[in-house]
Amino acid sequence: MNPVRVGLLGLGTVGGGTFNVLRRNAQEIARRAGRGIEITYAAAREYDPARLPGIESVKVTDDAFAVVDDPDIDIVVELIGGYEPARELVLKAIANGKHVVTANKALIALHGNEIFSAAQQRGVMVAFEAAVAGGIPIIKAVREGLAGNQIEWIAGIINGTGNFILTEMRDKGRDFADVLAEAQQLGYAEADPTFDVEGIDAAHKLTILASIAFGIPLQFDKVYTEGISYITREDVSYAEQLGYRIKHLGVARRTAAGVELRVHPTLIPDRRLIANVDGVMNAVLVKADAVGPTLYYGAGAGAEPTASAVVADLVDVTRTLTADPENRVPHLAFQPDALSDLKILPVEDIETAYYLRMCASDRPGVLADITRILGDRGISIEAVLQKEPPEGEQQVPIIMLTRVVREKQMQEAIEQIEALQSVEGKVTRIRLEHLKSS
Amino acid sequence: MNPVRVGLLGLGTVGGGTFNVLRRNAQEIARRAGRGIEITYAAAREYDPARLPGIESVKVTDDAFAVVDDPDIDIVVELIGGYEPARELVLKAIANGKHVVTANKALIALHGNEIFSAAQQRGVMVAFEAAVAGGIPIIKAVREGLAGNQIEWIAGIINGTGNFILTEMRDKGRDFADVLAEAQQLGYAEADPTFDVEGIDAAHKLTILASIAFGIPLQFDKVYTEGISYITREDVSYAEQLGYRIKHLGVARRTAAGVELRVHPTLIPDRRLIANVDGVMNAVLVKADAVGPTLYYGAGAGAEPTASAVVADLVDVTRTLTADPENRVPHLAFQPDALSDLKILPVEDIETAYYLRMCASDRPGVLADITRILGDRGISIEAVLQKEPPEGEQQVPIIMLTRVVREKQMQEAIEQIEALQSVEGKVTRIRLEHLKSS
Repeated sequence: MNPVRVGLLGLGTVGGGTFNVLRRNAQEIARRAGRGIEITYAAAREYDPARLPGIESVKVTDDAFAVVDDPDIDIVVELIGGYEPARELVLKAIANGKHVVTANKALIALHGNEIFSAAQQRGVMVAFEAAVAGGIPIIKAVREGLAGNQIEWIAGIINGTGNFILTEMRDKGRDFADVLAEAQQLGYAEADPTFDVEGIDAAHKLTILASIAFGIPLQFDKVYTEGISYITREDVSYAEQLGYRIKHLGVARRTAAGVELRVHPTLIPDRRLIANVDGVMNAVLVKADAVGPTLYYGAGAGAEPTASAVVADLVDVTRTLTADPENRVPHLAFQPDALSDLKILPVEDIETAYYLRMCASDRPGVLADITRILGDRGISIEAVLQKEPPEGEQQVPIIMLTRVVREKQMQEAIEQIEALQSVEGKVTRIRLEHLKSS
Repeated sequence: MNPVRVGLLGLGTVGGGTFNVLRRNAQEIARRAGRGIEITYAAAREYDPARLPGIESVKVTDDAFAVVDDPDIDIVVELIGGYEPARELVLKAIANGKHVVTANKALIALHGNEIFSAAQQRGVMVAFEAAVAGGIPIIKAVREGLAGNQIEWIAGIINGTGNFILTEMRDKGRDFADVLAEAQQLGYAEADPTFDVEGIDAAHKLTILASIAFGIPLQFDKVYTEGISYITREDVSYAEQLGYRIKHLGVARRTAAGVELRVHPTLIPDRRLIANVDGVMNAVLVKADAVGPTLYYGAGAGAEPTASAVVADLVDVTRTLTADPENRVPHLAFQPDALSDLKILPVEDIETAYYLRMCASDRPGVLADITRILGDRGISIEAVLQKEPPEGEQQVPIIMLTRVVREKQMQEAIEQIEALQSVEGKVTRIRLEHLKSS
C-alpha cells in the first residue's frame, strides 16, 4: 500500500522533532501501521536544515495554506501553535476533507467545540494527543482505556516549567524569582513566562481533560486559574515540615453540585506518588469508579516526547483511512507479517548489577579473597556493607553491590566464593537495576 | 442502534465485576460507544445472584459452548481463566466469527500465537487489555500510545501479591513466610501461591508486554523466572540501608545481542517512582527512544479494576462492528449528541482543605482570636505550626492546615483574620488536596 502523505505545518521544536522521529523510526512505524507515513510537504517561514537530515527530499513552502489546499495531502499536522492562523488552517484542512493532527492545546481548549463540529460534519478526524501532557498517552488512556468507568476526578501536574520551579525551590531552598530566571536561561521557561507560571497553559490542558473525562463541552473560560508566583520558599519549607509537597495542579472533579475546574498551587501529602514527580516531568492521576486510581507519568514537553504523541495520532488516523480489518490495531502491535525473529537471550548472557550477601569468618584477609575473585572476572564493586558479628558469633554478614556484569561471570564468581573456607553456606544474589532513563 | 450482544463466560470475581460495571455504568458507556453493550447470555457452573443485581434478566447456562455457539452473540468475553477449556472456547468463538475479549494472561502467553493467527484468518478481534496489569491500560499505551517509538526496555511490577509481600516485609520487618500466610488469609494470595510468588504469573504478563513492545512472537518458555521466596527480611533491610528497595520486576530489554526476558527480585534506587509503588498496586515503566521514560500505575487485579479493562476492550471492539465514521473514538470521548450540560462551579463553591500562613504578634490571645474566626465558620483545624519569632522581631509566622471547607467560607474568614489588629499584612492561603483514592 502507498504511504500516507502528511503535510506538516511548522518545522520548529515539535515540528522538527516530528520530522526526525518519523524518519528515524520509519520502519518500526510502518510495521505497526501496516503502511508508511511520510511527510511530503511542509510549511515553515524559516528552519535549520542541519537539524533535519533528509529534509531536502521534502517540498517546503512558506505558505501554510498551500499545504492545506494540496489535494495530494491526506493528513495535515498543525504544529504552529497559537490561535490564529492555526484555527483558520485547521478549519480549511477539515473543509478540504483532510484529517488533522495537532499539538495545539490553546486552539483545542478555546476553539475545539467549533473545530470538532466541523470535523464531525465533514467525516474527518482531529487528533490531539500531543496537546495534553506531551508524550504521555493520557488522552488515549482516559478516552479509551477508562471507557468503562465513571470518572470522579483528575489531578495533574501538567506544566513542566511550573513543576521544575517548585522542585528547585524545594531542593535548593531558593526563591521563585531566582529559579524562574534560571529556568529561562535553561530554556525551560519562555522569555514571557506568563502562560506557564500563571497557570494558563495548565488551564488549557485541564479544559481538555475535563471534557473527555466527564463528557462536557470545552469551557476554558470557566476554569479558575491561579499561578505559582506567590509561593515563597518559606511556604515550601513549612509544607514539608508538615509532611506535604507543593505542586501546581490542575484539578477537575465531578460533585453532586457540578464540576470543579481549577488550576492552583496545592499541598499534597508527601507519600503520594504524584507528590514525588519532580523537575520538568508531568503526571496525571485519575480516579474512576471501577478501576480506582491510575497514574500516568512522563515528559510533558520537548521536541521528541511531543513528537511521540503526534506520531501515535498519525498511526491512529492512518488506520481509519481504510475500513479493512487489516487496518485495525494488530494483536501484537506490529502487523502479523512484520513480527521479527529477535533472539531471546539465555540468562547467562543477561547483564545486570548485583546485590550479594554472604556469611564470612570475621578475620583479616577474607574480604580480600572475595574481592580478588570478583576482580579477576572484571566485576567492579560499587559498595560494601560489613556488619558487626552478632553477639558471640564468629561469622559476619558481608553485603556488596556490584556494577553491571554478565550473569555468567557472576555465576562463576559466586561458585568460587562459595568454595572459600572462610565463607559459610550459599551466597544470596539479587539483581539490581538502576532503571535510569538515559 | 441495537445494543451489542455479549456472551460472558464465567461469573466469578472478574466475571461478576464485569457484569456489575457494565450494568452500573451502562449509560456512560453507551454515551461513549454510541450504542449499548449488553450481556445477554452467560455461562457459569455456580454463582451468587445476591452479588449480581439484575442477573435475573440474563440467560445463564452451565454450558460455555452453548454461549460460544449462539448465533445471537456478537462478542464472547472469556473470564474462566486457565488453559483449557478456555483455549478451546476461544478458538470455537473465533471459528464462529465472533470477536473475543479475554483477561486470561496464561492463555495469551502460551497460546496467543495460535489464537491470533486464527483470529486474523477469520477477520475477528481478540482483545486482552485485562491480561496485563489489571485496570492499567498498558496494552493500549504501549501498542498505540507509543506507536511512534522504538521501545528500549520495560520494567514492571506486574504481580500485586508479590508486591504486597515485599512491601509488608519492608514496612514491618517481617519474614516472607509470615507475610505470605497473612496474604493468604486476606485473600491477596491463593491457597497455592506458586503462580504469584514464583513469578509465573508475572512471566505470563511479561511475555505479552515484550511481544507488543518489540514486535516478536509470544515466547513464554524463554522467560527466565525467579521467585521472591528466597528474599529475607535482612536483605530488605540491607538494601534499604544502601538506598534501595527490593521489587519483584518483570524486565524486557532489547540489546544488540538479543532480547532479555526476565522476572526476578530486583534492587531499585529508592528515589525512583517505581520503587515507591507499594502494596497490591502495579506499575509499568517503559523506556522508549522518542518519548523517554513513561510510567503507568494502578490496580493490577481485583474484580472491578480488571472489569474496567474488559469493558474498555468491549468498547473498542464495538467500534469495529461497523465502518461508519460515527464508530470512531469521539473527539471528546463521548458521542457529540451525548455531551452533558453539567454546571461548572464558580470558585466560591469549590471545596478543599487549606494551608494558611500569616504573620501575627507574639502575644497571648492571638491564636485564640484566629481560631475563633475559623470556628465560627465551621472551619476545623488539622494542624498548627507556630514558629519562634526571628531574632529581635515581635511578629511570628503561624501556619495552619484546615479540613475541607467551602471556598466562600474561607474567603470570609481570611478577610476577618486580616482585619485583626494582631495580624500583619495578608494571609497566604494555598489549597490542599489529600488525593485519597477512596
